[in-house]
Amino acid sequence: MKAFNDLADFSNEEIKALVALAGRLDSNPEPEALKGKVLSLLFLSPSLRTLASFQAAMVRLGGGSFVISPDMSIHGLESRPGIVMDGVAAEHIREAVPVIASYGDAIGIRAFAERKSIETDMQENEFTAMTNLIDTPYINMESAMNHPCQSLADWKTMDDLNLPANGGKFVLSWAYHPKALPLAVPAATLHMAAKRGMDVTVLRPEGFELPDALMQKAAAAADVSGGSITATDQRSEAMEGAHVIYAKSWSSTRHYGDRLNDQKLREQHLDWCVDEHWFENAKDDCRFMHCLPVRRGVVVADEILDGPRSVVIPEARNRMLAQMAVLHQMLGGQS
Amino acid sequence: MKAFNDLADFSNEEIKALVALAGRLDSNPEPEALKGKVLSLLFLSPSLRTLASFQAAMVRLGGGSFVISPDMSIHGLESRPGIVMDGVAAEHIREAVPVIASYGDAIGIRAFAERKSIETDMQENEFTAMTNLIDTPYINMESAMNHPCQSLADWKTMDDLNLPANGGKFVLSWAYHPKALPLAVPAATLHMAAKRGMDVTVLRPEGFELPDALMQKAAAAADVSGGSITATDQRSEAMEGAHVIYAKSWSSTRHYGDRLNDQKLREQHLDWCVDEHWFENAKDDCRFMHCLPVRRGVVVADEILDGPRSVVIPEARNRMLAQMAVLHQMLGGQS
Amino acid sequence: MKAFNDLADFSNEEIKALVALAGRLDSNPEPEALKGKVLSLLFLSPSLRTLASFQAAMVRLGGGSFVISPDMSIHGLESRPGIVMDGVAAEHIREAVPVIASYGDAIGIRAFAERKSIETDMQENEFTAMTNLIDTPYINMESAMNHPCQSLADWKTMDDLNLPANGGKFVLSWAYHPKALPLAVPAATLHMAAKRGMDVTVLRPEGFELPDALMQKAAAAADVSGGSITATDQRSEAMEGAHVIYAKSWSSTRHYGDRLNDQKLREQHLDWCVDEHWFENAKDDCRFMHCLPVRRGVVVADEILDGPRSVVIPEARNRMLAQMAVLHQMLGGQS
Repeated sequence: MKAFNDLADFSNEEIKALVALAGRLDSNPEPEALKGKVLSLLFLSPSLRTLASFQAAMVRLGGGSFVISPDMSIHGLESRPGIVMDGVAAEHIREAVPVIASYGDAIGIRAFAERKSIETDMQENEFTAMTNLIDTPYINMESAMNHPCQSLADWKTMDDLNLPANGGKFVLSWAYHPKALPLAVPAATLHMAAKRGMDVTVLRPEGFELPDALMQKAAAAADVSGGSITATDQRSEAMEGAHVIYAKSWSSTRHYGDRLNDQKLREQHLDWCVDEHWFENAKDDCRFMHCLPVRRGVVVADEILDGPRSVVIPEARNRMLAQMAVLHQMLGGQS
Repeated sequence: MKAFNDLADFSNEEIKALVALAGRLDSNPEPEALKGKVLSLLFLSPSLRTLASFQAAMVRLGGGSFVISPDMSIHGLESRPGIVMDGVAAEHIREAVPVIASYGDAIGIRAFAERKSIETDMQENEFTAMTNLIDTPYINMESAMNHPCQSLADWKTMDDLNLPANGGKFVLSWAYHPKALPLAVPAATLHMAAKRGMDVTVLRPEGFELPDALMQKAAAAADVSGGSITATDQRSEAMEGAHVIYAKSWSSTRHYGDRLNDQKLREQHLDWCVDEHWFENAKDDCRFMHCLPVRRGVVVADEILDGPRSVVIPEARNRMLAQMAVLHQMLGGQS
Repeated sequence: MKAFNDLADFSNEEIKALVALAGRLDSNPEPEALKGKVLSLLFLSPSLRTLASFQAAMVRLGGGSFVISPDMSIHGLESRPGIVMDGVAAEHIREAVPVIASYGDAIGIRAFAERKSIETDMQENEFTAMTNLIDTPYINMESAMNHPCQSLADWKTMDDLNLPANGGKFVLSWAYHPKALPLAVPAATLHMAAKRGMDVTVLRPEGFELPDALMQKAAAAADVSGGSITATDQRSEAMEGAHVIYAKSWSSTRHYGDRLNDQKLREQHLDWCVDEHWFENAKDDCRFMHCLPVRRGVVVADEILDGPRSVVIPEARNRMLAQMAVLHQMLGGQS
């Protein structure tokens, strides 16, 4: 495996093998599988779960990692091509990324969306500008429009819960949040659930529709897997018979990159906070998923997070296991 | 071992076994004992020795660790129950702590005192709010009123120096410091020396008496071990025949949480800086201990730190060895 | 090996053995060589390559490391002897350095120049103040006037490229940079190239001459190795027949520590940006080296960094390999 960048690059059989490997590494540890192997971790945006889970994953497999993050005094990295670097930035990604990659057997890279235009962010310019510089195997630790590690963990989480693939009803719901957040998680989640064969409903207020290109990519995956994709702003309709609701806030796509108008629009939807009322016509044991961090009382009510529907903690732990499986395959751990 | 939270939870035999194990792991390294095991390290307050010594301890036993600290861009963690999180904090400890714990085989947690009221801090609300959320074995890396890793290291340090247990005279002395510091180290030290069977004198100016509950807990330990507890503000009386003086500054308990009055009172005691005159009627080879960091010329004179009485460097190194013993027992290293 | 502080402390045979070991550890990994061994990493100035490459080096050899850096909330370390510490600093290097060292089997220390006077910086007061406090084997990770890890990596880089030792022409060239940078890299590079037996030309504008003591140290090394040392401000003369140009900016030595006059003088030399014109009378395949980070369009043109002359990426990777060799010898890895 030369790259773990997008679940769409893998067949369902390959995904299932990764999920199975993740489970096996949990029950049968392999503390020598990646002995002496190094994972370089490059964060251009801050992180908690990703940072911790990748470091833990490498230790569990007998290797190790190092972290370069924006918390360090590296004065920012320049990324514009052809620039005369007489300002603050002391280093260009054209040097920094290949060097950091060269210390590892693989590199994980996190680069968030610029969030000026959807079209630009859909092109993943910042992320591919970096991966184009290296031959080292790489892992997408969240880019402008993707988060494959989260999606692999989420797939495993649903398998662990015996949530049906074909015939399973998956609601991806927007929720209120005071900030305009990236589309990476909803984009990846929509595609993942469709690829898993589920009937996916995107539930969101007007102005927060997911971009057409993302809907089409998911629809294509659904066509292959036997799933389906729909979208609505009607909560009750969306939740009918749902096996799982995956809540996540994201930027208004109508006002993408326009903070003021995004804020005005989102503040009309303060009531999009998932509570027990949402589940009235869902399956009795309908589950609640979220990638974390989550704002209590804003995105979701305490009663849900503290009740039996929530699977957010094992879901987060599955980040570590899913990444162990990816690293094991990528770095040639003996099975 | 499910928790290492308070020396009082262990019998003297258990403490001695840990100290012996710490010594054995120093002379006979076990670099495969915790192969593939992960220690999660969660610091809600900054740290140098604890951070470094736990990371080193895990490497020496063949495992590894990861660190979440307030230096990282995690925007603070919310801890108030039932709060609507529409402010700065993006995550609640109810999610963050179980997730961080779930990546490790054990977790170390540091949470300082709130320092508004002694009663509240004695209840260890902040620390137990976190440990109540997890089933993972945990280690207290300093809480409002405890520091068991320091105490285990200090016990070993005195054993290494052949300082007598029963019959040994231990002076825990307040010292001047420009800031009002927590009671965690004096609280833990008082109890540790009493539990070790020593005759403990708390030497402090008026207004800096240790809380009754701490004195009673130590007295109970002394009753079992054959030690004793007294307190005085008379330096010469306290130091008579002392085998060791353990210096540490702490907040005024009379003006706890009242910065201005604490400061006024402490500034009357600028002369509480341990120098050679303090030792006039102590044992000739009376030792000087301190948990570090220490302010030279303020808490203690250079002549002491640079002279033969000081054991602060091996004492700090014992932090690593003591923690290796705890980790070895907690994480099931083969002996 | 008790210290890796200066290439001058080692014979050419010893250097060659380290370079050979670095190559061997690259082709034949030894992931158990330093099992359970710990490297303490103390940065008093920020770092990216050094931080990453040392951490990766220890993992590749089966050990681990921990980092203490100025990014952490350690409030600065006091270093003045005899000071009364009633200010901001909560800890003195007299405690911090021995403690940090005591957690490791070796310690790496980075301490930059004070840059007030050349004479003071040449004495390496800050660095030796720390190493004098410890018995632990130590590695110079860059001091006021030295950078032996960079030099060992550079030596290996030239060997890898089959650049001739005796008879090889090495140009160490000043380049423009908006800031007055330390002399550590030029000082170490000058001596390294001379010790390798090369004919070294220091190319720099007036006012940027390297200090006499550095020139004499390099000349002494050249006497032994059969190399030579010259200096000029004439670009064409310097580059004639050159096998390699090593570009680096440094402070004006005429106005050392005088920021304003340094800046005035350096701004007269904005044209000292290495581009293809510099190579007109060099060897056809003359190489470009730089220790990184490098400012594109300021120190060197993109055409050079992106073209076949540049070896900066493998040069940076050699940092890791060179340090692995040093650590392997220092910490007793079985060969």
